[in-house]
Amino acid sequence: MSLKEGVFRVGLLGRGTVGSAFAELLPRRADRIERITGLRPELSGVLTRSSGAFDEILAGSDLIVELIGGIDPAREYLLRAMRAGKHIVTANKQLLSHHGEELWEEARHNGVQLRFEGSVAGVVPVIRVLQESLAGATIDRVHGIVNGTTNFILTEMARTGATFAAALAEAQRLGYAEADPSDDVDGRDAAAKMAIIARLAFETPVHIDQVRYEGIEQIQPDDLEYARDLGLGLKLIGTAERIGTAISVRVYPAFLYPGHPLASVNGPFNAVTVESEAITEITMSGPGAGGPQTASAVLADVISAMIPPASTPPATERLEIIQDVASSFYLHLEVADEPGVLAQVAQVLALQDVSVKSVMQMGMRDQARLVMVVHPVLESRFDAAMELIAGLEIMRARPRAIRVIEEEFG
Amino acid sequence: MSLKEGVFRVGLLGRGTVGSAFAELLPRRADRIERITGLRPELSGVLTRSSGAFDEILAGSDLIVELIGGIDPAREYLLRAMRAGKHIVTANKQLLSHHGEELWEEARHNGVQLRFEGSVAGVVPVIRVLQESLAGATIDRVHGIVNGTTNFILTEMARTGATFAAALAEAQRLGYAEADPSDDVDGRDAAAKMAIIARLAFETPVHIDQVRYEGIEQIQPDDLEYARDLGLGLKLIGTAERIGTAISVRVYPAFLYPGHPLASVNGPFNAVTVESEAITEITMSGPGAGGPQTASAVLADVISAMIPPASTPPATERLEIIQDVASSFYLHLEVADEPGVLAQVAQVLALQDVSVKSVMQMGMRDQARLVMVVHPVLESRFDAAMELIAGLEIMRARPRAIRVIEEEFG
Repeated sequence: MSLKEGVFRVGLLGRGTVGSAFAELLPRRADRIERITGLRPELSGVLTRSSGAFDEILAGSDLIVELIGGIDPAREYLLRAMRAGKHIVTANKQLLSHHGEELWEEARHNGVQLRFEGSVAGVVPVIRVLQESLAGATIDRVHGIVNGTTNFILTEMARTGATFAAALAEAQRLGYAEADPSDDVDGRDAAAKMAIIARLAFETPVHIDQVRYEGIEQIQPDDLEYARDLGLGLKLIGTAERIGTAISVRVYPAFLYPGHPLASVNGPFNAVTVESEAITEITMSGPGAGGPQTASAVLADVISAMIPPASTPPATERLEIIQDVASSFYLHLEVADEPGVLAQVAQVLALQDVSVKSVMQMGMRDQARLVMVVHPVLESRFDAAMELIAGLEIMRARPRAIRVIEEEFG
Repeated sequence: MSLKEGVFRVGLLGRGTVGSAFAELLPRRADRIERITGLRPELSGVLTRSSGAFDEILAGSDLIVELIGGIDPAREYLLRAMRAGKHIVTANKQLLSHHGEELWEEARHNGVQLRFEGSVAGVVPVIRVLQESLAGATIDRVHGIVNGTTNFILTEMARTGATFAAALAEAQRLGYAEADPSDDVDGRDAAAKMAIIARLAFETPVHIDQVRYEGIEQIQPDDLEYARDLGLGLKLIGTAERIGTAISVRVYPAFLYPGHPLASVNGPFNAVTVESEAITEITMSGPGAGGPQTASAVLADVISAMIPPASTPPATERLEIIQDVASSFYLHLEVADEPGVLAQVAQVLALQDVSVKSVMQMGMRDQARLVMVVHPVLESRFDAAMELIAGLEIMRARPRAIRVIEEEFG
């Protein structure tokens, strides 16, 4: 397809937050993508408000990435690009929730790919999973947290007791909310995404105007207080579900009982749970917004358009596989209940550079139980310490150890 | 490709638990798949221990589904099928973790698809997400719960205080563990899956023999007691991570601190968290085993091999989109603190068939707060009740309502 040998030419429309992140990401990943696909991706042109000519970019591209947003002129550009036989990658939820059928029909008619993972839930692969992994399943319901701004605001309100206005200001300060946050906080952004999800889940046309939505502006701090006391999480939820032979698609703030897969999704994260009789449920979560994250989703779509389906590229690396790594351990010792026991154990651990993080000693009749957690240490050293401890006369049973994985996430 | 017009011929090797479920699922979904892909899938032949001839099935198939398991003769069959230009779908983790490079090379050489979603984590789309959604990302680490049997056993031990032996017996009774559970409980099954995950994540060959693994046979009830007291979850974790310019791949029981995305994955579920600088993290969870679930993953691979990439099929349905649905609500009323208030509110609710699930009344100086949760009711009826309540003289502020989503999951 490419006119320039060995090169895959990507034309970029729009250079806002996501567009700029994409323009920066593509050249940084070009080596890797060439290794995987055999083609080197190159930015063949960028259309901004003030520079670039669409026709020229179109003629010089194998694929068009549309990150302008909004309906016009994005719609016209995409239709023209597909008629010219170009693949499309877009993150434009507004356009797809208004004119999806027209665009998908044009893609089928011209035999080109129209990919749009970036339009819903950023890097969470909900579009791909609905279109591919669940293509054969009958989906009963989708619940989603598909707006990171509101999930951040609700998490802040719950965590600090702040009002909606204060939490919104904090979100704006951190870049999680735009200067004009109306589309996010009134639920309309989530409604557009749920329209796209419902279309894919139920194979029926869904226009954004058919999605009922409510926002979170009315939520009071004492609603969240009540929720916290009962262990409930308050989330802005999008639901698309079958009801008899019809469907319902809606967005609304809701209390989730603890244990619900979406209840523990906090901060600017997005998550989607798909329920189907055949599979019970799948839940996916991850960062839902942000320029670099959405640009990653867009880039994945570009690579998918370049690569043959289901190809496992050659293993280009020959990385060493390390057997001895550092781990933190929980250590459980049954010992004689006599003076100096802790000192003996501590001495052996120190000898192998094993550093104790916490320790708990419990008397049990004539023996005692020593439970410790140690800081990360090379497992070979820890094993050596365990061998030495096992040989101590004070031991009443084989020492037991289980690794500990600490919190490392945002 | 198909010799028979409009038909896509699927040859099935193996009719164990997953094979039987697949043989049953394919005809049930044939109408739907034909609608999506334009081709009707048909089972062209089934090879079992006692019946069917491989050569004949091969000649009459466009795609081979391999669900025999084990190395031989599965390896030979797949190599021969790919040399004959057939696409492959397999769920064989043993084969891929031993001979993956040979098989992937053969697929590339013959330009056929080799799909294997069912080999890891059942219906959780970890293979597709690693190969496609994250094709452009540099992955730092993958943590996974990739064996449903052991996760069920550990969940049971934590929940009931049972010993390993008792929980294993319960898992066998419920069909979550096989008669010979050694490969599951000693960690080897998880090791094979982590070898496949690590190969895809790091583009470097990983053989199962390079994966260190430990099982859960040594876990004692009091380890889990200790974990419960501290809010820690004990899971059999597979880790594949970069360490400098090398990697480590291992399977081991580990305590997870609360808040870790894998800590709340219970029962026979699987889950995988992928960490990458560009995307922070994605977590996916769902049922990890079971004939129908794995058969669903296999079927999705078959459909993916039939369908053009990134195709959004026409909307074949024209489902009604309902606007008035039934919901459960939390209701927050600021009322005068006087006798008969609750009675008035209750009467209005009863009038609209709104049934109260729980109620809490709190005095606050000269007014009171009434917090209720009501059973699911048509939202139009609930809205009508809210209008009536807003008009009551006892009200001191606009009534507030937030929907409630109850626990509905296994």
